[in-house]
Amino acid sequence: MKPTDLPPHISRQYDKELEDVRERVLLMGGLLESLLDRTIEVLDSGDRELAVQVAESDYQVNAYEVSIDEECTEILARRQPAASDLRLVLAISKTITDLERIGDELEKIGRILIKQIDADTPRSRYVGLRTMAARVRDLLHETLDAFTRMDSHRALELIKEDEKIDEEQDSILRQLITYMMEDPRTITSTLDIILAVRALERIGDHAINICEYVVYLVEGKDIRHITLEQARREIEERG
Amino acid sequence: MKPTDLPPHISRQYDKELEDVRERVLLMGGLLESLLDRTIEVLDSGDRELAVQVAESDYQVNAYEVSIDEECTEILARRQPAASDLRLVLAISKTITDLERIGDELEKIGRILIKQIDADTPRSRYVGLRTMAARVRDLLHETLDAFTRMDSHRALELIKEDEKIDEEQDSILRQLITYMMEDPRTITSTLDIILAVRALERIGDHAINICEYVVYLVEGKDIRHITLEQARREIEERG
Repeated sequence: MKPTDLPPHISRQYDKELEDVRERVLLMGGLLESLLDRTIEVLDSGDRELAVQVAESDYQVNAYEVSIDEECTEILARRQPAASDLRLVLAISKTITDLERIGDELEKIGRILIKQIDADTPRSRYVGLRTMAARVRDLLHETLDAFTRMDSHRALELIKEDEKIDEEQDSILRQLITYMMEDPRTITSTLDIILAVRALERIGDHAINICEYVVYLVEGKDIRHITLEQARREIEERG
Repeated sequence: MKPTDLPPHISRQYDKELEDVRERVLLMGGLLESLLDRTIEVLDSGDRELAVQVAESDYQVNAYEVSIDEECTEILARRQPAASDLRLVLAISKTITDLERIGDELEKIGRILIKQIDADTPRSRYVGLRTMAARVRDLLHETLDAFTRMDSHRALELIKEDEKIDEEQDSILRQLITYMMEDPRTITSTLDIILAVRALERIGDHAINICEYVVYLVEGKDIRHITLEQARREIEERG
């Protein structure tokens, strides 16, 4: 009996499993988006309780990772997917690792913000951090959107935008270093803000990794370590 | 025909494929170990050419990742492994992602060291960085050793040692902050050393992730987000 001869309900059940695991990835991503929203709110309002929420939500993210990973292993073991289904399951397995690490970075940022609020750091010191957080939230949102629609062209565009975030980061860091130089008493607290900026940068890197999996999923091409130009050319050549 | 009835040469071929992919993971790990060795040598000697080597070896690491990942996908598609073989392939697929990111961190460290050498930073500023690099190299070495011998008990011990590295890092960072405060002209260059220390910390984190995959592989238990005590208890209960 070939797979296509399977009774329809079995095949439908399998489709449902794949759809279910994809949906749960989006739920996990949505949780991280909302944590980034809360981070921005903390930067605007100085709300300590909200910062504690950001610092302590990691366990929810982790629970998602473990359970989705189990689902993926289960599907691989029972369904033995081939071709594009196999790529989907592998891409999901990698995506949730990146999402989980975004959770780790958010936890660090939350802890830093609690310290800053307790130390009454002037709000003006956060301007760059806030800009960066908004950028990264947009990037994550669009990444999850590209993932939902399996839009590899959009994913490639997002990969390119990453350079802009890096440039922005450099100018924010230079600004923060100026604060340190002008008033060495602020060194310790400014250093924490710098580490929060770097954590946001890494969240951006994880989003970009996910964009690369989307391209891999749709185009069947591993673009992780080829240049953007090459990737674009190869995709265009296929139409 | 059940899998056990397969002609022996087919099964031997499959074993060889699994063995081959494991060996290549160890080669990839060995490359990273040698890059860490070179990093330490740079810290001791100030050898600029060696620093350039460290900064530019990332493409070799990436090539390993892409080709091992392809091998894993191939094995999943053609062999449809079950149970422990499936776990092995999935653990390898995750391990190489962490190894690849260790390569990224080493690239960053290499670039920072080139800048420091060009700026003639006094060697004394590197003492903490060197201690940290040696620690992390030992951790990576032992992690790969636990991976080779599939030694989950050792892997659990290494996971515990991670706390010590974190404590060490804190005291190194405090020392570096003191330099900044004493002489604000050193802020920019000291900040780079701090970022190199953090990059080493993340290399340690990636090694710990690999230890967790080893435990998962041997014990069939996902310990990524349970406490160490729980993990140890569960392993002991099984004998």
